[in-house]
Amino acid sequence: MRYELYYWPGIQGRGEFVRLALEEAGAAYTDVAREDDSSLMRFLEGDGVAYPPFAPPLLKAGKLLIGQTANILLFLGDRHNLAPSSQAGRLWAHQLQLTLSDLVAEVHNGHHPISGGLYYEDQKREAAKSTKALREERLPKYLAYFARVLAQSGSGWLTGRALSYADLSLFQIVAGLRYAFPRRMKRLEADYPGLTTLYDRAAGRPRIAGYLASPRRLPFSTEGIFRHYPELDH
Amino acid sequence: MRYELYYWPGIQGRGEFVRLALEEAGAAYTDVAREDDSSLMRFLEGDGVAYPPFAPPLLKAGKLLIGQTANILLFLGDRHNLAPSSQAGRLWAHQLQLTLSDLVAEVHNGHHPISGGLYYEDQKREAAKSTKALREERLPKYLAYFARVLAQSGSGWLTGRALSYADLSLFQIVAGLRYAFPRRMKRLEADYPGLTTLYDRAAGRPRIAGYLASPRRLPFSTEGIFRHYPELDH
Repeated sequence: MRYELYYWPGIQGRGEFVRLALEEAGAAYTDVAREDDSSLMRFLEGDGVAYPPFAPPLLKAGKLLIGQTANILLFLGDRHNLAPSSQAGRLWAHQLQLTLSDLVAEVHNGHHPISGGLYYEDQKREAAKSTKALREERLPKYLAYFARVLAQSGSGWLTGRALSYADLSLFQIVAGLRYAFPRRMKRLEADYPGLTTLYDRAAGRPRIAGYLASPRRLPFSTEGIFRHYPELDH
Repeated sequence: MRYELYYWPGIQGRGEFVRLALEEAGAAYTDVAREDDSSLMRFLEGDGVAYPPFAPPLLKAGKLLIGQTANILLFLGDRHNLAPSSQAGRLWAHQLQLTLSDLVAEVHNGHHPISGGLYYEDQKREAAKSTKALREERLPKYLAYFARVLAQSGSGWLTGRALSYADLSLFQIVAGLRYAFPRRMKRLEADYPGLTTLYDRAAGRPRIAGYLASPRRLPFSTEGIFRHYPELDH
């Protein structure tokens, strides 16, 4: 069975967390909306769809149409051995993923504090304030937390001896934060070297390394969740 | 086995979504941190905890300590028949719950657009702008979506013939929005009568009705997620 991934064309966005899991699994998939989002829009309009989604990413797996990034990863984790198999371990991986989702939402709110429906340029003054709180309080709190989980695990991965989808998502977040806040992240990573080690180990996985070097990996940009605006990086 | 729920004392907050599921299930639980959060703080400090949480609510179920609201509900849904049992149905209920979680986060950002670490009074000007976008764009979009899912289901519940934890969460969100935005919600509910019907049906379940009339149900307040500031309700 070949998966179909539906996400907004042209950006990594939340779709990237799903792509990384599919790539690590060596799963066959088509990035359907990569160039043309008409099929994605049909799902979002919901006509004739049993389980109409609110927003992408969506994963079509045979007859299943699954929405919400963390929900898709819950499904893929079980199918492709990208999460612990015990009940406690599965819940733990998902708990970490949901915390990573919260961090991603806060990063987006940094540059769009007033509304996702307005341009950054229309909320720059407010974004300077919200990103200050993100840089100085929230990022250190989240990164310290994940560094502590890594240290406690002792394996270099978050959830036990093997890599899970949560590790891939944390890799992606470190990558995104390095792009968005290069100056701040240099200082933060010095405080949490476990995160740098996780980044390097994930990036060095053969399938992930192959993916990152391929044209399937879209570049970061100021259209996505992680945005580099020099005025927001101190 | 008696569950232990840990949440910030004195507010409904995200803990309320868990409380409603426990109440509907008729499960025995202790609301441990209701008056004293020292035990909650020990978990958050993480010493000697196998799976250290980032934030409450937390549910202790025997040896399991589960964090993240939607993750707790995923667990309780299986245990107490508060979600469909098929794989597709379980994923669908969880997908809806994660979309409800996104809505809750956006409601919180309405009155705290700059930082959760600042008082509302310190971001009032920005909150007026962010709540305008919430009232005029985001709430109608979310409420129209859930009304459509209810209409498509045809049973009066979101996920099929029986009530699920997602229905209880949608009930709570309607209750919270009525408290926070009474004027706006009167108009919005007129557009989406399916939501009013769901509210009434959920509130009329014997165990939920008993809970809502009990002292276990904390009042809404301007300390929680749903806050009534008259200047934000048009």
